[in-house]
Amino acid sequence: MTFANDDPVTLINVFTVEPADQQRLVELLATATERSVRFAPGFISARLHRSLDGTKVTMYAQWRSTADYEAMRADPAPLPYLQQALAIAKFEPGMYEVVGTFEPGT
Amino acid sequence: MTFANDDPVTLINVFTVEPADQQRLVELLATATERSVRFAPGFISARLHRSLDGTKVTMYAQWRSTADYEAMRADPAPLPYLQQALAIAKFEPGMYEVVGTFEPGT
Repeated sequence: MTFANDDPVTLINVFTVEPADQQRLVELLATATERSVRFAPGFISARLHRSLDGTKVTMYAQWRSTADYEAMRADPAPLPYLQQALAIAKFEPGMYEVVGTFEPGT
Repeated sequence: MTFANDDPVTLINVFTVEPADQQRLVELLATATERSVRFAPGFISARLHRSLDGTKVTMYAQWRSTADYEAMRADPAPLPYLQQALAIAKFEPGMYEVVGTFEPGT
């Protein structure tokens, strides 16, 4: 991986969870983001989603660079929330670039 | 026309692929969306992403309702593209509601 690229990076992190634990997982991720992650250098925006079938919670976030995101992941402040989240969920991370956007056709 | 009781729904569809096939998968999904999906009733917007490690392609899309999205999935027009995509990729769909948005802290 290179850190030379200054394009924004999109993180799409999918957590798989038992439906009984979905609400608690939403609260843990919301609290981690509200109290800690959004203050990190390079954080641009994030949106948290709950799957209608109860089995997933997905965070969609944009960061200034992969280096900024990785610096936040190395910060101990959000770690307690993430450790609680990983006790009840399976975490599948993804680091992306946007390759296309689509508007409604007429 | 709007349906006051229908909340928008977010589709986050993660495709897993061999890195050698990632670019072809991007092209198939972009073509399906450009030529067909975005003309479907209830399509609001979509953004296509390529993972930096080469192993995933993820479509993030918003629709007026689950019924509109399911009507598009039942339409034969985009099917040839999706069948070609599924020949080279594993598809993990997710249907979500947004539960929170986060702005940078100061």
